[in-house]
Amino acid sequence: MTTTELPFAKGHGTENDFVLLSDLDGTLDVSADLVRALCDRRAGIGGDGLLRVARAGEHWFMDYRNADGSIAEMCGNGVRVFARYLFEEGLVPLGPLTVATRAGLRGVVLAEDSVTVDMGPPAFGPESVAVLVGVEYAGAAVSMGNPHLVCPVDRPLAELDLTRAPVFDAGVFPDGVNVEFVVPAGPLPGVDLHVAMRVHERGVGETRSCGTGACAVAADALRRAGRDRGTVAVDVPGGRVTVTLDEVTCLLTGPAVIVARGVLDPARAGAAVPAPDR
Amino acid sequence: MTTTELPFAKGHGTENDFVLLSDLDGTLDVSADLVRALCDRRAGIGGDGLLRVARAGEHWFMDYRNADGSIAEMCGNGVRVFARYLFEEGLVPLGPLTVATRAGLRGVVLAEDSVTVDMGPPAFGPESVAVLVGVEYAGAAVSMGNPHLVCPVDRPLAELDLTRAPVFDAGVFPDGVNVEFVVPAGPLPGVDLHVAMRVHERGVGETRSCGTGACAVAADALRRAGRDRGTVAVDVPGGRVTVTLDEVTCLLTGPAVIVARGVLDPARAGAAVPAPDR
Repeated sequence: MTTTELPFAKGHGTENDFVLLSDLDGTLDVSADLVRALCDRRAGIGGDGLLRVARAGEHWFMDYRNADGSIAEMCGNGVRVFARYLFEEGLVPLGPLTVATRAGLRGVVLAEDSVTVDMGPPAFGPESVAVLVGVEYAGAAVSMGNPHLVCPVDRPLAELDLTRAPVFDAGVFPDGVNVEFVVPAGPLPGVDLHVAMRVHERGVGETRSCGTGACAVAADALRRAGRDRGTVAVDVPGGRVTVTLDEVTCLLTGPAVIVARGVLDPARAGAAVPAPDR
Repeated sequence: MTTTELPFAKGHGTENDFVLLSDLDGTLDVSADLVRALCDRRAGIGGDGLLRVARAGEHWFMDYRNADGSIAEMCGNGVRVFARYLFEEGLVPLGPLTVATRAGLRGVVLAEDSVTVDMGPPAFGPESVAVLVGVEYAGAAVSMGNPHLVCPVDRPLAELDLTRAPVFDAGVFPDGVNVEFVVPAGPLPGVDLHVAMRVHERGVGETRSCGTGACAVAADALRRAGRDRGTVAVDVPGGRVTVTLDEVTCLLTGPAVIVARGVLDPARAGAAVPAPDR
């Protein structure tokens, strides 16, 4: 390739996947066009978002962008993949780590097979309903910084049609809402509760995993079980995460994997195909 | 990473995208599981298929696998990306090249901005019809080694719903068929005809590009224009290819790009996520 090539990696946490760009000297200009080109799943590398790996003073800074090029404050699965990348590159050891994000500093614990991130405490909101293909599901609002509506359902999750967005009460959720549908799952050693969920993320559609959604679901499940703390295994379509709530915060634990690393030429990603003029 | 890491590249031709694995010494055991893991768009690298780059006697051999792990004989866009990879790696110069595939030897011409592959001659079959969401479209069977049904339509392509497979006459197409919908496109210098198409590939669904489909569409368009040779620009959703028919064969020309290259750990692709037990 040419001298314009950039080092990159691709990784995922429960199939929430990211393109990582190393920018240790802080010189990389990551435009929205570049993000869209690299996150394009056919003409680029492909990912739900892009993580620029940079420094901010004494901390590592996760510069997170959505696949559409917009800037996002935080991404729970993104922080876990970001931390795994730092370890893979030999930049940090296993153990505790603090990552700077646009939403503030986040505590992380890197282990051999998992990464844990401190997601902050949940805030419970009012009861509300989601309407999916004409069927109404009762649920409860939970904020993890972003808004969630957690709806326990009494039918198999596989039967739900999440190809269209659930209808919600815009009076309760003026900025839109991520909607989780939840069922109990079989007993599992080492946790207090075990549930399975599917999620429709606002502005995106159904996704394979949602870190804040898993935390909201776990908090709601514990509350419905009459508890204010405990550990919940949450199965998402892309795998399994574990959420632990205590008096002060919510910890999200799960796998985070770097699948590949290499170099890419940004001029070739996405921009290489002449646009048809129809 | 570990000592098990494999060199790989990712590339595409009009957004028909591939994971390439270098196997110059012919020692790589590419299982169907590995193909599925690497072609997984979230837990792996992501691609429509995998190209193992190997030697077969005096020729380069394209070992092509579909994303589901099955073996395929040929892929027109795959050969073009394969040839571009050989050039990028410094293994062949620009100019003519012969690539071995399971369907036999293919002539290729590598140029700076495009790759041309000899796809062999079309064979015209009977008229037939495709039924899409209750609407019948008349078309003609064209074989490029694999079966196509080319249907000129008189409505904007964007209005077609290709989320479901077109219904076809199983008497004419006992092994299924790839169905192309075609409209005329604006005048373009340097070509005899210019059309735009969308394609539903059998067993796959709508795709961004189909090399044999573009050839079938070009052959059909020339025949309908009363010609048996000529050059046709074919716009596919992923870009533009050019097809030239002469007395003996059909040449497919278009962009082919290597976007990234690096190393991956096959043990981490796809297999890293514990399966939820719901």
